[in-house]
Amino acid sequence: MMNIERTKMTAGKPYQQFDPELIARRELVRQVLHDSNQLADNDQRNNQIKALLADVGEHFFVEAGMEFDYGFNIHIGDHFYGNYHLTMLDTCPITIGTHCYVGPDVGFYTPVHPLAARERDADVEMGAPITLGDSIWIGGHATILPGVTLGDNVVVGAGSVVTKSFPSNVVIAGNPARIIRRLDANGDVVADS
Amino acid sequence: MMNIERTKMTAGKPYQQFDPELIARRELVRQVLHDSNQLADNDQRNNQIKALLADVGEHFFVEAGMEFDYGFNIHIGDHFYGNYHLTMLDTCPITIGTHCYVGPDVGFYTPVHPLAARERDADVEMGAPITLGDSIWIGGHATILPGVTLGDNVVVGAGSVVTKSFPSNVVIAGNPARIIRRLDANGDVVADS
Amino acid sequence: MMNIERTKMTAGKPYQQFDPELIARRELVRQVLHDSNQLADNDQRNNQIKALLADVGEHFFVEAGMEFDYGFNIHIGDHFYGNYHLTMLDTCPITIGTHCYVGPDVGFYTPVHPLAARERDADVEMGAPITLGDSIWIGGHATILPGVTLGDNVVVGAGSVVTKSFPSNVVIAGNPARIIRRLDANGDVVADS
Repeated sequence: MMNIERTKMTAGKPYQQFDPELIARRELVRQVLHDSNQLADNDQRNNQIKALLADVGEHFFVEAGMEFDYGFNIHIGDHFYGNYHLTMLDTCPITIGTHCYVGPDVGFYTPVHPLAARERDADVEMGAPITLGDSIWIGGHATILPGVTLGDNVVVGAGSVVTKSFPSNVVIAGNPARIIRRLDANGDVVADS
Repeated sequence: MMNIERTKMTAGKPYQQFDPELIARRELVRQVLHDSNQLADNDQRNNQIKALLADVGEHFFVEAGMEFDYGFNIHIGDHFYGNYHLTMLDTCPITIGTHCYVGPDVGFYTPVHPLAARERDADVEMGAPITLGDSIWIGGHATILPGVTLGDNVVVGAGSVVTKSFPSNVVIAGNPARIIRRLDANGDVVADS
Repeated sequence: MMNIERTKMTAGKPYQQFDPELIARRELVRQVLHDSNQLADNDQRNNQIKALLADVGEHFFVEAGMEFDYGFNIHIGDHFYGNYHLTMLDTCPITIGTHCYVGPDVGFYTPVHPLAARERDADVEMGAPITLGDSIWIGGHATILPGVTLGDNVVVGAGSVVTKSFPSNVVIAGNPARIIRRLDANGDVVADS
């Protein structure tokens, strides 16, 4: 039976982050990520990381410096490439389709703190999932915020702050990210907006 | 008696960054941060880091990858949490109240270089302090620039570039950051702006 | 004779990223950067990094955490300073003049993927060079995108996303970066725009 705090956390509901099982998992992940970052060999490092994730498809490759909290909420399809220093805060599920390419220093953040200071100061924490379709390219230094869903064939410009969901076949960019181009079903540019 | 270049630096005045005592301190910090990042144990790493800071309150926790230059200009109140890869350039004081939560890849930068190339190229460097009140939440990938003061109960959106000071009870976001919501004294949202 | 895939890559043309010589070079760089980041000594670390770059002038210094792919496409003039965690994706040439100062967490990205998903998913990759003049100051967390040229005496605000080229004697900032001030030939501010 799944730990009740983990169940609440994964569902995005307020949970107790100092639950002993969650702490133990974070410490295990910390240890493995620490050890894997001592390895110069790409395959060894990637194999250690894959073993911590919920699901990973074929052809998974991340460069050095990946960080995440639990791993058990990360679901990645075939043909994933993550460049240097990818950060995934996975209190809630992060689900990624096939052919996702991610630039350096990108952050996927699912945790949410309350805006009310008295609650936030009492360590109340919630969250919301991130869900990406197939054929996504995320430029370097972009951040994907809690609750965001992206369709298929989406290009996220470098440095974008993605605060809301977007449909398939668009190029988005900016802070906050907005649609700057629409692509046709073949992936060709159909219009500038 | 405090080193004169350190005194000028901390006051934000032009100083000699190649002063031997400042170099020695930077090298000591470099060595300790390097060693602490070899430690998988969170408590050991945090204890090594705390020993370098000017003041740290109760319940200080930073994840892996914190970087700073001196430490002696960093003053942190109770209940501080810094996520992965927090960077504090502390030529001038960085002063933080209680209950400050900081997302991954956030930068606090106090150094300032001259806009005049001939001075900048001659390694003239100044600075300005950063001062944060109580109950602050800073989203991932935000940067806080020299001279910024934030009041109490301020939420800084992920990816914000905070170029100027803001009062208490606001949510700020964007590049440059602007007020996007005002919060009441209890921390509840009172209006969108 | 230079490897044909390396020649195509450096010219910005579609190339085969799984070419054995390119893979071997990336693995060598990975090993050296990994080893150099185990060194607390600044001079030792910098010497190991310099040995991988195409050209480096006098007075080169980078703080811990620099990442790049090949090194053979990085050309840096005298008096270069790179703060923590500088990332240079150098499939195409990155050419930097004298007196360039770079803040923490800055990215120089030369690779380009196709907007058409069916091509991108087939691992087609191109690129465009980045060229900087003399006396450049780049604030922390900025990103410089493929094809960008900056003139002399340019200040890039922290967190800027530089998507196009700019002439000499300007301060740029924002996402996307725009000119916010013009500087005279002596580097003094002549107007706000």
